[in-house]
Amino acid sequence: MPNTDMTMEASLKDLSGYYQTIPMAQAMQLEVVGFAGDRLRMRAPLAPNINDKGCAFGGSLTSLLTIAGWSLATLELARAGFEADVFVADSTIRYLAPLYDDLEVEAWLAEDESWEGFIGMFRQRGKARCQIHARAGLPQGGDATTLQGRFVALARQAKP
Amino acid sequence: MPNTDMTMEASLKDLSGYYQTIPMAQAMQLEVVGFAGDRLRMRAPLAPNINDKGCAFGGSLTSLLTIAGWSLATLELARAGFEADVFVADSTIRYLAPLYDDLEVEAWLAEDESWEGFIGMFRQRGKARCQIHARAGLPQGGDATTLQGRFVALARQAKP
Repeated sequence: MPNTDMTMEASLKDLSGYYQTIPMAQAMQLEVVGFAGDRLRMRAPLAPNINDKGCAFGGSLTSLLTIAGWSLATLELARAGFEADVFVADSTIRYLAPLYDDLEVEAWLAEDESWEGFIGMFRQRGKARCQIHARAGLPQGGDATTLQGRFVALARQAKP
Repeated sequence: MPNTDMTMEASLKDLSGYYQTIPMAQAMQLEVVGFAGDRLRMRAPLAPNINDKGCAFGGSLTSLLTIAGWSLATLELARAGFEADVFVADSTIRYLAPLYDDLEVEAWLAEDESWEGFIGMFRQRGKARCQIHARAGLPQGGDATTLQGRFVALARQAKP
């Protein structure tokens, strides 16, 4: 796990504290699994995220995918020494197959972008955007749901 | 409110029962407001749907917009006498402005489609899809978040 160092461990703990301030994140019982290569993995149990058909509720899938993307951008900024406000600007979600199991998702930077470019832009302008992809996997392989989202980071304004 | 008749009232009650089978819908405390013209309105209080910044959590907004679209398609099928399984196939969401107030959303059929066409297709083939738009409004006017989603209705298979 080349991306996991002590700074990253601390940032992952910060994130867990952050999720606890969001009632819906708590209700979903989501948690960070860690990095697999450059992909951030998160999960949530099926039981609190189930729908009437016995599979994962679409709102939970979308929420978890979006939070995974948001967390990835936030962690990359933290790794570079920045605290920033990160927002999701837009996203496209495809629900490909029902998921009758725990929600396991991963998020990664779009292939044609680089964290160096994103961080460089943020350092220069106090603002940067990136495109993140995320997927919820099926236990037998393949995708249950995919997300492509644009995230924006803004430098925190100094408090007066 | 030309769309509200006794069948529709009964269907709205069915929907409320349906939401109670979904833990996240309960946690969001969402409810159907009713129809305003051809638009289905739903809402949820801010408190259980808040994020760390004190505004509406993106996952809650997306969930409520998606559920409003799903509910609209389900109600139109019920009005035509059909019980169907309705799924969201894909959606595009734009987060335009933070919402520091209760979540109030409305969903409607895309302007270039008709419920007659959707229901006719469903009657003929046991399957139909429609494009639904939805928005979460800001108290001062304008949009906080918008969604465009494609929903698919499938005839329920008779149980063996």
